[in-house]
Amino acid sequence: MFRGRTRRESVGDAASPPPYTASEAGAPGIETKKKKSTRKVFFGRIIHSKSLKEVEILHRASLGIDDKGTILFVDSSVASAAEACAKHAGFAHAETVTLGPMQFLFPGLIDTHMHAPQYPNMALGMEGDLKEWCENWTDPMEASYADTAKAHRVYREMVQRELENGSTTVAYNSSIHPDATNVLADTCLEFGQRAVIGKLCILVGSTHGNWEASAAQSLADEAKVVRHIRQIDPAGELVMPCIQPRAGSYVPPELMAGLGELYSRESNSDTNNPVRVQAHMCETPLEVANMHALHTGFESYADMYDHYGLFGPRTILAHCIHLTERDMQVMAARKVGVAHNANSNTCLTDGWCRVRELLDHGIKVGLGTDCSAGYSISILNSMRQASNVSRHLTIHTGDPGWKLGFDELVYLATMGGAEVCALDHKVGNFGVGKAFDALLVDVGLDDDNINTNGFEHDDMALLKKWVFMGDDRSIRKVFVGGRLVAGKDLKGVTKGVSTP
Amino acid sequence: MFRGRTRRESVGDAASPPPYTASEAGAPGIETKKKKSTRKVFFGRIIHSKSLKEVEILHRASLGIDDKGTILFVDSSVASAAEACAKHAGFAHAETVTLGPMQFLFPGLIDTHMHAPQYPNMALGMEGDLKEWCENWTDPMEASYADTAKAHRVYREMVQRELENGSTTVAYNSSIHPDATNVLADTCLEFGQRAVIGKLCILVGSTHGNWEASAAQSLADEAKVVRHIRQIDPAGELVMPCIQPRAGSYVPPELMAGLGELYSRESNSDTNNPVRVQAHMCETPLEVANMHALHTGFESYADMYDHYGLFGPRTILAHCIHLTERDMQVMAARKVGVAHNANSNTCLTDGWCRVRELLDHGIKVGLGTDCSAGYSISILNSMRQASNVSRHLTIHTGDPGWKLGFDELVYLATMGGAEVCALDHKVGNFGVGKAFDALLVDVGLDDDNINTNGFEHDDMALLKKWVFMGDDRSIRKVFVGGRLVAGKDLKGVTKGVSTP
Repeated sequence: MFRGRTRRESVGDAASPPPYTASEAGAPGIETKKKKSTRKVFFGRIIHSKSLKEVEILHRASLGIDDKGTILFVDSSVASAAEACAKHAGFAHAETVTLGPMQFLFPGLIDTHMHAPQYPNMALGMEGDLKEWCENWTDPMEASYADTAKAHRVYREMVQRELENGSTTVAYNSSIHPDATNVLADTCLEFGQRAVIGKLCILVGSTHGNWEASAAQSLADEAKVVRHIRQIDPAGELVMPCIQPRAGSYVPPELMAGLGELYSRESNSDTNNPVRVQAHMCETPLEVANMHALHTGFESYADMYDHYGLFGPRTILAHCIHLTERDMQVMAARKVGVAHNANSNTCLTDGWCRVRELLDHGIKVGLGTDCSAGYSISILNSMRQASNVSRHLTIHTGDPGWKLGFDELVYLATMGGAEVCALDHKVGNFGVGKAFDALLVDVGLDDDNINTNGFEHDDMALLKKWVFMGDDRSIRKVFVGGRLVAGKDLKGVTKGVSTP
Repeated sequence: MFRGRTRRESVGDAASPPPYTASEAGAPGIETKKKKSTRKVFFGRIIHSKSLKEVEILHRASLGIDDKGTILFVDSSVASAAEACAKHAGFAHAETVTLGPMQFLFPGLIDTHMHAPQYPNMALGMEGDLKEWCENWTDPMEASYADTAKAHRVYREMVQRELENGSTTVAYNSSIHPDATNVLADTCLEFGQRAVIGKLCILVGSTHGNWEASAAQSLADEAKVVRHIRQIDPAGELVMPCIQPRAGSYVPPELMAGLGELYSRESNSDTNNPVRVQAHMCETPLEVANMHALHTGFESYADMYDHYGLFGPRTILAHCIHLTERDMQVMAARKVGVAHNANSNTCLTDGWCRVRELLDHGIKVGLGTDCSAGYSISILNSMRQASNVSRHLTIHTGDPGWKLGFDELVYLATMGGAEVCALDHKVGNFGVGKAFDALLVDVGLDDDNINTNGFEHDDMALLKKWVFMGDDRSIRKVFVGGRLVAGKDLKGVTKGVSTP
């Protein structure tokens, strides 16, 4: 009989969370000078998206944040951190971080769709299609989170792994269990990850007991989670509530109507932490047909969600593969966003999401890992798979116009994700006034698979090599809202040589 | 201006090669007892392919090798290494290695197609198609290996990285330069990697001066490389020569005829190290058309190679995407093998190799990384991409029959590759009498992305998690012919906790 690691050991109950404010002293490869202020100035290579078509690379620039982690300046006219401190008012005593020559700052990655309870199933169960996979793998695993202690064990490991892989913001699907969902919210807050979280709502179409007792119970439990999240994070600084109908085919009209009312009520409530919606849409033709069978009389899937008041600028829709032109028109009009899950869509042979067409319609698009139908929690992998799917569309059609360019992939993984999560005012790039959600990446290490060896033409090559060949080893520091929350330096993991 | 790492530092001129025979003492997580003999017995979980449809997992078994690294027994009836030593004649004093509970032995991975000189370009240049990529990236890079010192620097780093990623056998394409190619052969021998190596032959169709002076020069240089390889490794224990027409569109009839004669002559010579053929075929419709324009009158691409005597059981053909039924019939009849390069074919939008159809025709298939058109040197990545491409064929056609099963992916990465390289009598699985080319994999570490956490159903889950979520961090030891040549234990890289 196989005996894996014990649960306690595997999911890190014993591990201490990383401190919210960790000293940078002693981190290898980075020159840090501590001064009295908690303001910080970074100096070195800074890379982020200006638009879908433009990645901006500042070769030697400085970025200053205040003691709340808000970006106060990005300045490419100075030659050192000291010069930046002298030039910018209030930064005379700032702590400075000078990056190494093979390092760069990059915005935190944004995972717009991830199923937290499915985490243990990753890499397993790709034999069939979506229906078979749900019945054999997803439903029994999700149902098991009636055991809240299991949620505690799994989510602590998962959130830390997500952060180590650079996902500073994640839109999580949970299970049908309010208590387990609240554990997820607590865990994100504890480890300092920005997250959109809701309790999944399922009444029909599921197996292995993975459904709720009644529409009334489902609504009461969703409201309970919204209240809990607003209680632990009133300003929505990190954790934000969302309403989660699993998909149209799982939520009959009476519950969908109730969720629409809940959304409307909570959206109009006087709060700094507004509710969002996260749902699945048009993943497979069968699921679309099932939705129409359950919700008769709608012209399109989008019309159904829109009818119940669940479509708006804070709505995140996973997949959106088998859309009609009508769907796209309604989506664009309501300013909903799409989580493009290229890896899972390929693994389950769901189909190809036509990202170019979505962008041409003006629809917001971000990337999602969709674990465990996708087998990687890394948004770098999502970028590669999004590139691949766009290329398979080109192979399928003969039209190179489907291909996503590299600058577009960078945008989708950062700014696009921020837009989908309705957080583009706060994160996604290094705009002044935004929160400093950032990765300190080192592509000059010895013990990874990145071969930067001096033949690169320019700085863009360094970014491409990280995106296509890199992994969490390169992510030395992860900041959320200016706080150091993860990264290999924090864990003290061997770094190899970063050549100066 | 960007300044990367200096060449010297980046490509490891200063690094010592790993010793051919390294002590296992002190390797963490593995209990080793040294005795007088150099025979070895491993005990623990052993996984390999029995056939395309069957991965065999021996949960607790022992494997014994002699002092030349030949497998003398695989025995699942014993309960410990000591019991295996007592039972098998000649092993009373063998050195024993007992694997940890989250470890397993796996056959060395086989990369059936990799362009050594393109290594520095990895992850760069995916903007266009094959033609644009060759003109802008491949041709200038390959031409630069007229500088043999550059070959020395690049190939030392590359061979070590290939080994660390578990590729114990690689079929390398080189450049048009005999001296640089000989450096590649020397390097593989030095670091202990099994390799098929030839000098690339190009007369037309290339740019940036990346072609040879004449057919006579090309032939003389290829013969020079064959002689060199037979001189440094007469028995072909590790390094084997091959003849390398880049593709039909690069080698006009007079040179192709000369290569056919060289192959025939060298195949009939009295040697223990027979020559192989490695070439490209049917990568894009344009390349096929260019071949037909250069070699008029042939019914198919396969007929052309076959006409010149280059088709046989030791022929490796990269890509084979745009095949006709006639191509496949000739390929099956001549017992040639196909290197399926799913990653590069996707990156360059070459098309989908129809692996199921090749297998149904009885054609040998292995996996290739095809760096740098592919961006990963890991055959684990090739397995994922081969899975993906097979699923995109299912999406394209609606027929689930195109999907490659997990057992098939394992076979292609190991035994299939051995067959393609005409090495299936020697490597590919743990058959008695074969060379011990093996990886010691640990899927219980803390600092990777593999989440084995006790919810796995069986041992197969451990293998799937390594294949889909793992990387070189899990590869603790790499053996070629029984010699420890690479692996994270050898490099002393932090291992994290492997839970007992």
